[in-house]
Amino acid sequence: MNILLVLGHPSGDSFCAAIAQSARTALEELGHEVIFHDLYREGFDPLISAREIPQDAPLDPVAARHCRELAQAEGIVVVHPNYWGQPPAMLKGWIDRVFRPGVAYRFLEGDGGEGVPEGLLKARLAVVLNTSNTFEDREMAVFGDPLENIWRKCLFQFCGVPDFYRHTFRVIVTSSLEQRRQWLEEAAQTLRRLFPRA
Amino acid sequence: MNILLVLGHPSGDSFCAAIAQSARTALEELGHEVIFHDLYREGFDPLISAREIPQDAPLDPVAARHCRELAQAEGIVVVHPNYWGQPPAMLKGWIDRVFRPGVAYRFLEGDGGEGVPEGLLKARLAVVLNTSNTFEDREMAVFGDPLENIWRKCLFQFCGVPDFYRHTFRVIVTSSLEQRRQWLEEAAQTLRRLFPRA
Repeated sequence: MNILLVLGHPSGDSFCAAIAQSARTALEELGHEVIFHDLYREGFDPLISAREIPQDAPLDPVAARHCRELAQAEGIVVVHPNYWGQPPAMLKGWIDRVFRPGVAYRFLEGDGGEGVPEGLLKARLAVVLNTSNTFEDREMAVFGDPLENIWRKCLFQFCGVPDFYRHTFRVIVTSSLEQRRQWLEEAAQTLRRLFPRA
Repeated sequence: MNILLVLGHPSGDSFCAAIAQSARTALEELGHEVIFHDLYREGFDPLISAREIPQDAPLDPVAARHCRELAQAEGIVVVHPNYWGQPPAMLKGWIDRVFRPGVAYRFLEGDGGEGVPEGLLKARLAVVLNTSNTFEDREMAVFGDPLENIWRKCLFQFCGVPDFYRHTFRVIVTSSLEQRRQWLEEAAQTLRRLFPRA
């Protein structure tokens, strides 16, 4: 299976980066073809420009490549820390620039852009793995876990991906090395279960 | 009153930019001192770096200035479009880089970063004005309006701002010029009501 794996964390030494590496290894060991983007390391430009907004706008080669990869992906895996109930700006910019009309969704004829679009993505399953320093009960009671709706409903359902799985590893900041080792194995097991060998 | 006004939209011709201009004029006419940032026009760098994460990290002069202005603001007004239930990456990066520990919040002694911090912001009221191309009933039923929790709970309550007001102007894409004129006046009236002359 052709799987797109995207990491959005400023530090190459982060636990998020370790999760992404664990995910990549697990998927490749099962024979999947993994396209991996460490957005920070690649210097991805997260800023959508005004001229890039129209559906038929010319795209720079990097954005065009990301769009092709997204459209062709049969599975999508995203790894990022919870920054203010949202992804870091880097990853938000990947969404802004790559989930384009004509690539990820389209409005039906007669729809001026205010209606219910049709999702265009080929992927049947999207997986989001998060890290957080907030305990789950506080996240749910105080913050309402905006990341769940953001990824599941606003993005992947909108773009026609029917299945969604998300897991948050927490609390990172006070975790032991042994705990983090278990979490990395848990991430690998989760991906082996969700994307079994074809 | 010292009010920080921040605009996050890629286009200077956008309705968001017009709202920000209407807000600025209304506030200045009441005698408020408005610090205005059009993040796109200023070329703000939205990417937090790994070395910028620690609380005592040295900041570049632009980020340091934004932090000082945020800390000193008595009122905060943010204007942005709804992109995927979130702000555009540019504005998300302003949050990532400016709402820092020691500036916007601090963890209490003995808290390793996993607990309930103390908000440090001086502002007593934050206002968020959004634009959207989604009707309100669909936003609430399908997407769950993540922007409400993101701004109200994840950010401003967390950072000690007790009062919060948010309004979404919708649907922009199919609106008439006359409708948009009314919305601009509505934005001005809202700010005159929320930030009356001292």
